[in-house]
Amino acid sequence: MTPTITAFERSPDRGKGLARDMRVRWALEEVGQPYHVRLLTFKAMKEPAHLALHPFGQIPTYEEGDLALFESGAIVFHIAERHAGLLPDDANARARSIAWMFAALNTVEPPIFDRALASIFERDEPWYEQRLRALEDSIRQRLEQLSGRLGDADWLDGAFSAGDLLMVSVLLRLKGSGLLDEYPNLSAYVARGEARPAYKRAFDAQLAVFIAASTG
Amino acid sequence: MTPTITAFERSPDRGKGLARDMRVRWALEEVGQPYHVRLLTFKAMKEPAHLALHPFGQIPTYEEGDLALFESGAIVFHIAERHAGLLPDDANARARSIAWMFAALNTVEPPIFDRALASIFERDEPWYEQRLRALEDSIRQRLEQLSGRLGDADWLDGAFSAGDLLMVSVLLRLKGSGLLDEYPNLSAYVARGEARPAYKRAFDAQLAVFIAASTG
Repeated sequence: MTPTITAFERSPDRGKGLARDMRVRWALEEVGQPYHVRLLTFKAMKEPAHLALHPFGQIPTYEEGDLALFESGAIVFHIAERHAGLLPDDANARARSIAWMFAALNTVEPPIFDRALASIFERDEPWYEQRLRALEDSIRQRLEQLSGRLGDADWLDGAFSAGDLLMVSVLLRLKGSGLLDEYPNLSAYVARGEARPAYKRAFDAQLAVFIAASTG
Repeated sequence: MTPTITAFERSPDRGKGLARDMRVRWALEEVGQPYHVRLLTFKAMKEPAHLALHPFGQIPTYEEGDLALFESGAIVFHIAERHAGLLPDDANARARSIAWMFAALNTVEPPIFDRALASIFERDEPWYEQRLRALEDSIRQRLEQLSGRLGDADWLDGAFSAGDLLMVSVLLRLKGSGLLDEYPNLSAYVARGEARPAYKRAFDAQLAVFIAASTG
């Protein structure tokens, strides 16, 4: 059965791979699962029909027969559990890969996402520079620790897994900030993620939506 | 094999159930799995021996034979996968419960945790009042949506699950803020979680550590 995901009709990042449907598209491409996309306006995301699918009125959602899911992490995990290629077979390695999924979303993403929000909503506040520095210190602490753990390895724990997929997705939001450049092994790690054919297909599909909305 | 978890030797919350080992203790109590606890000072958490277990130098960790895990969400999931009682048997219901686990940690917890951090570290900053209001608005938006979804139900999706365990754990940090009181069904939901015998055993065990450290 072909699943249907939801995505922004006009992504705030102009289709540059930062909206959270990207993670789900990338996972589906990694495992070779075709999918449908239903596009939503910001208004439609807050209406009852969508809130029935996603209690927090966000994208992406995932529908497959009787199953409706929300939260990009949970959707990526669902895909990884049902297809080969995103989680190791060995039980302990699988549990560690899942730990990296949670680490990406609960430990590494929050200060990175806060920085992105502050740079939009607090830019004109008198304290903006000071607040940005505090956020960047938090981010650097995480990056330093992550860089130390990654070392010279290609991926966080053995072969590429759903943990890497989410970690790279989270780190991508730092491109252009200069912060990632301070950790050459992390920059290379993100570049390895972006170079994967499945990533490129997902990126192109997401960008095509934005271009169609802007020119159509 | 009896697993070993790590916890603060002196928890910053004075043993009131907010440190993240509480979630793991609660899950272990729900499934009836005994466990050992290794207590760590803040200094020890940043030393190589602990960083080898937890790349971000935090608690809790989980060791069981050859397996070492970090991230409370991943540890709770590991326990829930290997024991009955924290995830439904039905595949779709199980996937939805996992979605609530990710929602608790990636959507609901970040603004709640930011508020707690800001109230400690930014109290004297010129932006504090405005930032607190902004964070509380974000929290209220999430609580409103969560309250709407929960409605009159006891738990988020059928029987109590790991999704509820993490969501209640995240909401508990709002006690005393007044924010939870604005949503009576969420206050009652949190109280139902706290009333579970497994929660109480975990809470008492965590508090006993703090009392021993303070009087010993």
